[in-house]
Amino acid sequence: MHPTILDAFIRTNGEYSLPYGSDEWTERAKEKIKEACGSTEAQVFFLTGGTQTNATVIHSLMNSFQGVICVDSGHINTHEAGAIERTGHKVITLPAVNGKLTAETLDDYLRAFFADSNHEHCVIPGMVYITFPTELGTIYSKSEISTIYDICKRRNLVLFIDGARLGYGLMAEGNDVDLPWLTAHCDVFYIGGTKMGAICGEAVVFTHNNMPKHFFSYVKQQGALLAKGRLTGIQFDTLFTDGLYFKIAQHAIDMAMKMKAMFTSHGYGFWGDSPTNQQFVLIPDSKLARFQEHAAFDIWGPDGNGNTICRFVTSWATTGKDLADLEHIL
Amino acid sequence: MHPTILDAFIRTNGEYSLPYGSDEWTERAKEKIKEACGSTEAQVFFLTGGTQTNATVIHSLMNSFQGVICVDSGHINTHEAGAIERTGHKVITLPAVNGKLTAETLDDYLRAFFADSNHEHCVIPGMVYITFPTELGTIYSKSEISTIYDICKRRNLVLFIDGARLGYGLMAEGNDVDLPWLTAHCDVFYIGGTKMGAICGEAVVFTHNNMPKHFFSYVKQQGALLAKGRLTGIQFDTLFTDGLYFKIAQHAIDMAMKMKAMFTSHGYGFWGDSPTNQQFVLIPDSKLARFQEHAAFDIWGPDGNGNTICRFVTSWATTGKDLADLEHIL
Amino acid sequence: MHPTILDAFIRTNGEYSLPYGSDEWTERAKEKIKEACGSTEAQVFFLTGGTQTNATVIHSLMNSFQGVICVDSGHINTHEAGAIERTGHKVITLPAVNGKLTAETLDDYLRAFFADSNHEHCVIPGMVYITFPTELGTIYSKSEISTIYDICKRRNLVLFIDGARLGYGLMAEGNDVDLPWLTAHCDVFYIGGTKMGAICGEAVVFTHNNMPKHFFSYVKQQGALLAKGRLTGIQFDTLFTDGLYFKIAQHAIDMAMKMKAMFTSHGYGFWGDSPTNQQFVLIPDSKLARFQEHAAFDIWGPDGNGNTICRFVTSWATTGKDLADLEHIL
Amino acid sequence: MHPTILDAFIRTNGEYSLPYGSDEWTERAKEKIKEACGSTEAQVFFLTGGTQTNATVIHSLMNSFQGVICVDSGHINTHEAGAIERTGHKVITLPAVNGKLTAETLDDYLRAFFADSNHEHCVIPGMVYITFPTELGTIYSKSEISTIYDICKRRNLVLFIDGARLGYGLMAEGNDVDLPWLTAHCDVFYIGGTKMGAICGEAVVFTHNNMPKHFFSYVKQQGALLAKGRLTGIQFDTLFTDGLYFKIAQHAIDMAMKMKAMFTSHGYGFWGDSPTNQQFVLIPDSKLARFQEHAAFDIWGPDGNGNTICRFVTSWATTGKDLADLEHIL
Repeated sequence: MHPTILDAFIRTNGEYSLPYGSDEWTERAKEKIKEACGSTEAQVFFLTGGTQTNATVIHSLMNSFQGVICVDSGHINTHEAGAIERTGHKVITLPAVNGKLTAETLDDYLRAFFADSNHEHCVIPGMVYITFPTELGTIYSKSEISTIYDICKRRNLVLFIDGARLGYGLMAEGNDVDLPWLTAHCDVFYIGGTKMGAICGEAVVFTHNNMPKHFFSYVKQQGALLAKGRLTGIQFDTLFTDGLYFKIAQHAIDMAMKMKAMFTSHGYGFWGDSPTNQQFVLIPDSKLARFQEHAAFDIWGPDGNGNTICRFVTSWATTGKDLADLEHIL
Repeated sequence: MHPTILDAFIRTNGEYSLPYGSDEWTERAKEKIKEACGSTEAQVFFLTGGTQTNATVIHSLMNSFQGVICVDSGHINTHEAGAIERTGHKVITLPAVNGKLTAETLDDYLRAFFADSNHEHCVIPGMVYITFPTELGTIYSKSEISTIYDICKRRNLVLFIDGARLGYGLMAEGNDVDLPWLTAHCDVFYIGGTKMGAICGEAVVFTHNNMPKHFFSYVKQQGALLAKGRLTGIQFDTLFTDGLYFKIAQHAIDMAMKMKAMFTSHGYGFWGDSPTNQQFVLIPDSKLARFQEHAAFDIWGPDGNGNTICRFVTSWATTGKDLADLEHIL
Repeated sequence: MHPTILDAFIRTNGEYSLPYGSDEWTERAKEKIKEACGSTEAQVFFLTGGTQTNATVIHSLMNSFQGVICVDSGHINTHEAGAIERTGHKVITLPAVNGKLTAETLDDYLRAFFADSNHEHCVIPGMVYITFPTELGTIYSKSEISTIYDICKRRNLVLFIDGARLGYGLMAEGNDVDLPWLTAHCDVFYIGGTKMGAICGEAVVFTHNNMPKHFFSYVKQQGALLAKGRLTGIQFDTLFTDGLYFKIAQHAIDMAMKMKAMFTSHGYGFWGDSPTNQQFVLIPDSKLARFQEHAAFDIWGPDGNGNTICRFVTSWATTGKDLADLEHIL
Repeated sequence: MHPTILDAFIRTNGEYSLPYGSDEWTERAKEKIKEACGSTEAQVFFLTGGTQTNATVIHSLMNSFQGVICVDSGHINTHEAGAIERTGHKVITLPAVNGKLTAETLDDYLRAFFADSNHEHCVIPGMVYITFPTELGTIYSKSEISTIYDICKRRNLVLFIDGARLGYGLMAEGNDVDLPWLTAHCDVFYIGGTKMGAICGEAVVFTHNNMPKHFFSYVKQQGALLAKGRLTGIQFDTLFTDGLYFKIAQHAIDMAMKMKAMFTSHGYGFWGDSPTNQQFVLIPDSKLARFQEHAAFDIWGPDGNGNTICRFVTSWATTGKDLADLEHIL
């Protein structure tokens, strides 16, 4: 965890507090997040991790017969072990472009769906799920999100934005989205902590006073309620003090851009063009073993041209020395 | 319902019987089906309809973390209102060729899946679901099914064949599959009654003494247990007496082939080439209203070339006069 | 099935109809039931059996965090193999008096529940489920039901009445409830067909224009939608023509009262005092084998005093000769 | 969190580690727990909180048609918001004696259940769940647990012991159970961390090499997998170094016994007789406001005799000064 968060744990450990999220840090963190979102009608709830958050939020906002629309590469479709289906809901997949759902794809699907006279035999869409940034590290523009949100409103669908890596999107070069704008242009999103310097924690933001009644019960029923809610409260209180959340993101982006430039200057290509802290580098298969010996990264699979797609991720903990060490093996 | 089934209801209505499938007709129907399947180790259970059968069978044979593989056009993926996901399982979709799952597609998917070191974060495949005939009216050959079954056995997957329209596949021209062969080449399948002259009813066949322990409880828990089990017992006892099931199928196929020839001779095209009782005819949009006025069929959607794909289905009840009437509007 | 229903199947078998409940008999049966309920805002849907109906209705009317209140002897708590829990909802049990939920028990429970400051950690009650008649054959009075309904309205709970054997309650001696009154004094109930002369079928009545949106999808997702909806449509059309439903019930009650008098005159006692078609007779253990040899009944368990509680049930099919035969073994 | 745990976070924060529980602390903690359990075939997995653990373990070890037996006051029945039912399983309740399930109650229930010829219509028991110590602070003896375990083995039921407060039971005066004995006398249990000095965390112990295949997937699907698994790994590594876990428990028990004596000497009565760190004190209603002003405790409800049952809990953080302050208001 980020040292400032560790400091907060050290500073507060002697203090008593109420359980289950009724502690003062949780309250304060909620207020700070609402302020950062520029909204008085936003409602905030802290959960522990991404899959848990996706399952809880999606289930709480849909009727049992509804499904959630998502691109085929969407996290809930690929890497959550069926957590959404376990809550009884279908993940309805549409093809992605650069990891993103396009308004056109969504619109075409919905138009065809409701035009089909047999659609009551099908899973009725109740929500659109997108990730910001996407699983490929790409980001949506204001224009793209607001067009999707307009479609959702017209079709009575909830727009839910998975922000497990939100900060890295907000700080990316070329990004035009900020927290207040995002708050105004979707129904619910979350501010990822786990991948942003916290040891765990995601801050769900219901944007328009639309937290489901008894959301607390949904959380408890999912097994997602922390007895010592201060665990997430203290962390988000810290992350939203003096802009720490954004500084962490900015540092990781800076390191990622340096790393990207470094790979580029050594002649490496990329799988997609990511402006965020995840870079998908094409490593020639012949060099792969050397990389695996000296660096920590994920293997995404072959690119079909003699390279392996390798995911390199930066964070608050990435240092200039780390990059220098990496350069030695390029 | 087919008149012979109605006769059986008339003949038996005065007789007492035990409830919940313990009646004599149910027992007798099971024996006749096992005989038709040429198997002493097959186990038979009667359910009411296709979606109910798919949900009950799939749920009973998979662990909660497993998903069922199916082509994108598969019935459980498209027209069952999320009944499978409601039981907690993901439907994992692969692209179809002529409505069919190919061994190559399946094998490639499984190889890539298990090669991925992160696959424990994904839904683990537990079953392969295919339909015979498919939603497009096409059929699998022996060679295609046995190759898929071999892959399933190698990967420890259950092979489940949805036979809601099974008879029409078995009687189709060019088909080389029969009941005993099918029984030997999958783990579970069902013999559809609802679309084969019964008022309701599907006969599930667990092929190798592999009915899950307490399957009765699974059925009851699904709300699928008939108090008066004779409703399905009498029907299947009748369908499997004197080959009625196959005669019904043969008649429908004969009518379908005549209808197909009729459409062809009048210059109509088809969406796919179906040898079964479902024919997907391309009706020029200009003629659609006329058809809708005089005939009963389903609209499948536009073909993109000025035609509407229309599904015409024959059955035991289709007569030569029906075809003659249809010809008048071609 | 009752001969009049069989006649209806014979009479209508040659006619074509639309599938999935869009047939004319289904439409007509709905209208007749609404008329019998004296309500223009009632909405009717046909399902196949009791457990299926309970699971579908309960799930469709509750949020996922809610539970359904029921007496410990209630059918959903004892004999439905966990079908309600399978849909994700807890069955909250309260003690019964003569098989019935009392207003006092309910009120005490709810008062204590909402007074508990930790109740958000508990399952929040969303519905009250009662059976009419009960599993012990007893019936609620108007006064009892309306007091319970008042509590439900005050606490924002749905009142759902399981009428799998409804007719036998309505025709019982001493009963003051009728269909229009019942329709006005609960949120949803069903008119059982399976145990009233139908081969299968239950008619769900949402009493106040409160059928959940997309109830059709809930039904389909449960695997409870009949492709040939006429199966239930024809039966209920028949049952609600010329008062057949009530005649069937009256005959069974008449036979049950004769049987009760017969047992009484031979010195047998009863487990509870049932005015309906189920009689729980105390058979001395020494005579049990003799009964089992000559009569068909269910064993409910020992009474602790050397008798076995045995359930004898009458129906439309019970004849005077059946009773005479029974008397020979008393 | 306990200061020694905080120290461990400080000491390790600069170190890199693998995610999802593949870190070295997690590995080391597992080994230490296995050693404390005196078992080489035990398997350990870390989860975050009690309800999550109960839901995940119960669901992973039962078939979908099975239910879990528990006393009516059991935590899964009362304070988990229906988390077990959400996974599809019924909680089958039996009456408690002093918060405990007795072997006789269990045996009687099971005998009657399997003697009932209709039991396939009921929820089939698959597991027995008990808590140690119980929700009333009472503890089971070796003799009680082993009798229950024998019944479970005879009936093919899993015995699962919820040890959210396990340490307080193990250190209680009069207790004869220890970790190795417990490991040998049940199928699965957990060692609670959250209520024993950790900020979060429960260590599940599958005692006989019986962790379900793909338990990792069950955890992920439940949304219970921590990306930074070191959060629980570091804590349990610390708790099981130099007997910290047992020291924390012993301190809390010592404080609880002093508090109990203090209340007793001032004439207060108790609801039950708890030898553990939870004391249920009967506070006269007239004094309640004064207590609420000066002390932190939970209200359990009225005792019916003019007192309120109040739960006072001690922990590692309870000091002599805390007790002295409390004494001032007695």
